[in-house]
Amino acid sequence: MSKYEELNTSTRILMGPGPSDAHPRVLKAMATPLVGHLDPEFLKIMDEIKEMVQITLQTKNELTFVVSAPGSAGMETCLVNLLEPGDEALICVNGVFGNRMADIVERCGARLIRVDAPWGQPVDPQQVRDALKNCNPKLVAIVHAETSTGVLQPLEDISRLAHEAGALFVVDAVTSYCGTEVKVDDWGIDAIYSGSQKCLSAPPGLSPVSFSKDAVEALDKRKMKVQSWFLDLSLVRNYWAGSKRAYHHTAPVSAMFAFREALRLVLEEGLEERFERHRRNHLMLRDGLEALGFEFLVDPAYRLPMLNAVKLPPGMDDATTRKRLLDEFNIEVGGGLGDFAGRIWRVGLMGNSSNANHINTLLGALRSIL
Amino acid sequence: MSKYEELNTSTRILMGPGPSDAHPRVLKAMATPLVGHLDPEFLKIMDEIKEMVQITLQTKNELTFVVSAPGSAGMETCLVNLLEPGDEALICVNGVFGNRMADIVERCGARLIRVDAPWGQPVDPQQVRDALKNCNPKLVAIVHAETSTGVLQPLEDISRLAHEAGALFVVDAVTSYCGTEVKVDDWGIDAIYSGSQKCLSAPPGLSPVSFSKDAVEALDKRKMKVQSWFLDLSLVRNYWAGSKRAYHHTAPVSAMFAFREALRLVLEEGLEERFERHRRNHLMLRDGLEALGFEFLVDPAYRLPMLNAVKLPPGMDDATTRKRLLDEFNIEVGGGLGDFAGRIWRVGLMGNSSNANHINTLLGALRSIL
Repeated sequence: MSKYEELNTSTRILMGPGPSDAHPRVLKAMATPLVGHLDPEFLKIMDEIKEMVQITLQTKNELTFVVSAPGSAGMETCLVNLLEPGDEALICVNGVFGNRMADIVERCGARLIRVDAPWGQPVDPQQVRDALKNCNPKLVAIVHAETSTGVLQPLEDISRLAHEAGALFVVDAVTSYCGTEVKVDDWGIDAIYSGSQKCLSAPPGLSPVSFSKDAVEALDKRKMKVQSWFLDLSLVRNYWAGSKRAYHHTAPVSAMFAFREALRLVLEEGLEERFERHRRNHLMLRDGLEALGFEFLVDPAYRLPMLNAVKLPPGMDDATTRKRLLDEFNIEVGGGLGDFAGRIWRVGLMGNSSNANHINTLLGALRSIL
Repeated sequence: MSKYEELNTSTRILMGPGPSDAHPRVLKAMATPLVGHLDPEFLKIMDEIKEMVQITLQTKNELTFVVSAPGSAGMETCLVNLLEPGDEALICVNGVFGNRMADIVERCGARLIRVDAPWGQPVDPQQVRDALKNCNPKLVAIVHAETSTGVLQPLEDISRLAHEAGALFVVDAVTSYCGTEVKVDDWGIDAIYSGSQKCLSAPPGLSPVSFSKDAVEALDKRKMKVQSWFLDLSLVRNYWAGSKRAYHHTAPVSAMFAFREALRLVLEEGLEERFERHRRNHLMLRDGLEALGFEFLVDPAYRLPMLNAVKLPPGMDDATTRKRLLDEFNIEVGGGLGDFAGRIWRVGLMGNSSNANHINTLLGALRSIL
């Protein structure tokens, strides 16, 4: 017999920065026998997913679909399609994911203008206003929910500034989507991407995206081919919409089954109810963690409800304690990234993982460790 | 209640160009509750997957892993990492997927040298020899199993020519992998990509890849950053190997569970036994289809066992008949692409779908339609 045994994983309680726990209905839908990626039944499923993504992003954008790869590929989809060599792009950076956008901008051959804010703080619109005096960017991009620091970024002022400067407004909603308000149309967002594995609680691997009319116009005006064939919207959109539904790549059928079921669960709960649940559980976790000596990194006005960045109590070792949580209690929480490595935890309360029982379980485990 | 009802798909018999039917064990593994993408248990699963991909590709290549996106992204991974602007690339084209490689080469800013052969025929090594007299390519790339035409391309002569010219040899094994011999080391293949949803019979969405020492050396010698952040091997390899296992993107955990189980099934069957099964079932299907008036597109010496490209009998309408097969019998077969649209079918016998019962089912349905 083979040395590779039957899959045998521990039953984890996922309270890190994603993936979050998938609902049993999502797992069950994913295990449905496959249909072909051009089967009329699958094309209908794609249509339904598109509609439900429109509802959950609060947008009427026609070009709304799901990239067949994780959130980082969604980020790259937005940037490589909207930028051409020589374009300028203003990127707001206050964490890992802003940095990643800046990196991709340079790989597009575009000129990068960075607006940096300290990690753990939001970007101040005044910084963007100042930077816009000295450049003429095609787009302004920012992270709505910075997963590396737990900061919720207010978007409306910066959106207005971007549009006044004639730029498109691009938003990373990987961690905020389905966990807190994301109003694509009301907030004037021209391009947005998210991930499947955060507050939607589908398995990781897919990235919902949406593009406004202005963004589509910019796509249509491109002079050069998009540098990525796989992410080229001029090709992908013919598979997701239109009369022809032309083959582009083989869609991840099972992952889309799961994604659809996760969206159904969101609509059954209701968006407002879901956001309120995330807020409520954040407050419960906050009280519990503060009582144990953890201190929040972010000012209350800008705290994410689904991603709680906390400084460790004095004397607590990061790696040892996270290992004990995992080994003895099956609980995953996230460590810090970059300068915050070893100094903060990122405790996720995302989607299906945002519930009182998880919080009590974590707090109980921490009490017995401390 | 929501207008979006519980997932309700027909039980298809998948005999198209992929996806193929996933084994129930694969679907069951995929529905396992999630673990985190940096969980030690998941890192071990990644190690096991890497080893099983090495075994099934018959290679000792250290840089062997799975791209978190479909086969087309695997293709793009190989080309964007190995090519820089100004490099030359010789691409052999005798179908849709050779064409796709040529398209990506140009998007890399590399100089494209095309060697074209008629669709439905293999590329003649003499053509490659002639083309190499007038160029100095960094790589020579070719499709092993052209899914658009059903041609099996002999690789060894062209590999030798590529190496004699100082070029790397890049192979598309999307449809051949786990269905017919693919000997990466013996055949001198420097970079190879495949897909999960063909003869491996895992759900679509992942792409196993492997790079030789010479290819890794070429990666290390790059002057510019890879144009894709998501596919940049200098980053991805630190997640898949090494002591640090650094976060790059969130891996599609559930899809990897399924991929691992599909690999386990391949090793349990045995590679030789699996290839023989694909050959045997191809011959059975051939006899049945020819008796019904179908005519094979490809010369017997170059026919793929897992993808049978056949011209329709006179008077049979493509779209109508495929629709009847799907609607009345739940059987999916593939239509033609490009110039072959409406004129040929592509009947897949891939992985779990390569079995006598499927063949009898299809032949019976066709007899009752005709």
